[in-house]
Amino acid sequence: MRDVAIVGIGMTSFGELWQTSLRSMWAEAALAALDDAGVESVDLITVGCMSSGLFTGQEHLAALLADELGMAGVPAARVESACASGGLAVRAGFAEVAAGLADTVLVTGVEKMTDVDGADATYALGTAADSEWEGFHGVTFPGLYAMLARIHMLQHGTTREQLAQVAVKNHANGLLNPRAQFHLKVGVDDVLRSTMVADPLRLLDCSPVTDGAAAVVLTTVDRARELAGDRPVVAITGSGMATDTVTLANRPALGELNAVKLAGERAYAMAGKTPEDIHLVEVHDCFTIAEIMATEALGFFDPGFGGSAVERGLTGLQGKIPVNTSGGLKSKGHPVGATGVAQVVEVTEQLRGESGQRQVEGARVGMAQNMGGSGGSSVVHILEVV
Amino acid sequence: MRDVAIVGIGMTSFGELWQTSLRSMWAEAALAALDDAGVESVDLITVGCMSSGLFTGQEHLAALLADELGMAGVPAARVESACASGGLAVRAGFAEVAAGLADTVLVTGVEKMTDVDGADATYALGTAADSEWEGFHGVTFPGLYAMLARIHMLQHGTTREQLAQVAVKNHANGLLNPRAQFHLKVGVDDVLRSTMVADPLRLLDCSPVTDGAAAVVLTTVDRARELAGDRPVVAITGSGMATDTVTLANRPALGELNAVKLAGERAYAMAGKTPEDIHLVEVHDCFTIAEIMATEALGFFDPGFGGSAVERGLTGLQGKIPVNTSGGLKSKGHPVGATGVAQVVEVTEQLRGESGQRQVEGARVGMAQNMGGSGGSSVVHILEVV
Repeated sequence: MRDVAIVGIGMTSFGELWQTSLRSMWAEAALAALDDAGVESVDLITVGCMSSGLFTGQEHLAALLADELGMAGVPAARVESACASGGLAVRAGFAEVAAGLADTVLVTGVEKMTDVDGADATYALGTAADSEWEGFHGVTFPGLYAMLARIHMLQHGTTREQLAQVAVKNHANGLLNPRAQFHLKVGVDDVLRSTMVADPLRLLDCSPVTDGAAAVVLTTVDRARELAGDRPVVAITGSGMATDTVTLANRPALGELNAVKLAGERAYAMAGKTPEDIHLVEVHDCFTIAEIMATEALGFFDPGFGGSAVERGLTGLQGKIPVNTSGGLKSKGHPVGATGVAQVVEVTEQLRGESGQRQVEGARVGMAQNMGGSGGSSVVHILEVV
Repeated sequence: MRDVAIVGIGMTSFGELWQTSLRSMWAEAALAALDDAGVESVDLITVGCMSSGLFTGQEHLAALLADELGMAGVPAARVESACASGGLAVRAGFAEVAAGLADTVLVTGVEKMTDVDGADATYALGTAADSEWEGFHGVTFPGLYAMLARIHMLQHGTTREQLAQVAVKNHANGLLNPRAQFHLKVGVDDVLRSTMVADPLRLLDCSPVTDGAAAVVLTTVDRARELAGDRPVVAITGSGMATDTVTLANRPALGELNAVKLAGERAYAMAGKTPEDIHLVEVHDCFTIAEIMATEALGFFDPGFGGSAVERGLTGLQGKIPVNTSGGLKSKGHPVGATGVAQVVEVTEQLRGESGQRQVEGARVGMAQNMGGSGGSSVVHILEVV
């Protein structure tokens, strides 16, 4: 198996991008990553996208996008694992380079969510849950995560204020990220007074509907050293995937995210790392409770201590383990298929020391954790300066 | 890169399966392949499916299906390249085993197309074309392939009767395949008298709307030898992918399928084979013209001679290069995401010598060619007894 590195990164600003189409914003991110890498051709394009069918009436997406870039002919593959589609696109590219099937891969993620109205977007997102056993009964994702929050509060004493503090921290980080959807200082009281969505989750506990695209260029570590010049070479040293039941009702326990735990363990094992070795992590905070549960599942805190960790500032920019320096899904925005790739963009930028005001000093090992549905799938990558 | 083999195959009968759901028919094929392989656990599941979102209101498909099989926890990835999604699922599994990231992969393809009405199915299939530049103007796939047929007739003198003879041959083969959707003897006159769909293509030139699932189990050639007992070991020695413009209007020429040509060349190069080495091939005959063009693009016949080759019987069961021994998409049926995997099932069965009345005697090298849209993407695999 060959060693794999990230030699280029690019992304659009995230937001409600009314003026642009899926293919145009995808091309913007892809061209930025190719330019950053200094390469003009690739052997493969992977595209993470949850539901271009329901959001834009377009399948066969990867071939379409290859042509948009003037690369008709180049192999192109779309992958889908709901909101973990971007992480899966990274994995698919990683496997091809590791196997020696491709030398250079353009890995991308994209979602155009605002071309349909709110009800249709809610329906499309709802197809990440079990349509027969969950969606049929009317539950949508705020409701599913509200149940997870209630159980976490009951089992572990996690408080309403601790949930709010996740939003406060991530919005503070997002203020320092020029590509974030929201540049908005948020206090605990703002969260607690925001509109109730699904008790106990309020509007400011929820990630938004977002348009956006992100891209990274993968190649072998050997070629990356040639391309990098005097920039640090960032390698992918761990890659782990796992699933859990999509249906919450089928799980033996609801206080933990088992797919995240398993994917994390697989990534740690491949990289030969433990949670103590990680200098920063992007986790999948689609709702505030998700960040708390993810940090526990990845071993940064014991089960039940994710909430108090936020309260104590352990996950802040200067904390023991900075979490979501980008602003996370909460503030940076959550174009579902793009999110997993954008997480890798953020971690790479941090490891290169190019994150400006939100830079984690001395960061040399980082992690990105992407999740589908209410934890039905997860993809975790560990990145290191090599 | 490790050598990869197919150790298990399984599929449902294809047809209008009103009595079963996507997940149930998928599990039937998956369990059959695992049983055939004699393995009880896998490291990864890949799922080729074009549009479970539009056909059944369900995304996040791979995680859902892993759980359906009692395998929640196991990594699972859905891939999509329109009607080439099944071929892409084979490629994704191949890459993971080749890289050493997985030792055993369950590769699957599925599509449940009859849970929506005909207009909605036509819309869903139409999303494999360019929604902005083709679909918006009202063209659907019979229309796109009718244009390809007209150009082929004009440039090469391909005749209306030659198109019909593709259907006659494939329906004759399908009569010998117990899992085919149609068991129907068709003559040239039947095709020529069938309802006009899009001039020059008539009803019997078109593959049907179909429900179905197919599965294969991949592992290393070394492990395959242990599992195979006294059965032949069938390896995947060539894997090629390519794209073309999705939009027909963007192509410099319409008389050839460039993605098929490129994907074929890449597969031949990896396997160290030429068209003369191939003993049988499953090609993507979504319309009769597609089979003729595919056999030319893969190098079995010179450009413009695919039509006369059918007429001369060169592609029949006893011909120089038997094409679509399974009955092809035309007679076996075309559940779009399942098709590419079902092609590999057929070729594997042939190479094992287990194809009964439609067995190609002495077949030791076979090919499967899967295609998305009107040739916007293609995936080609070469299989060999090793």
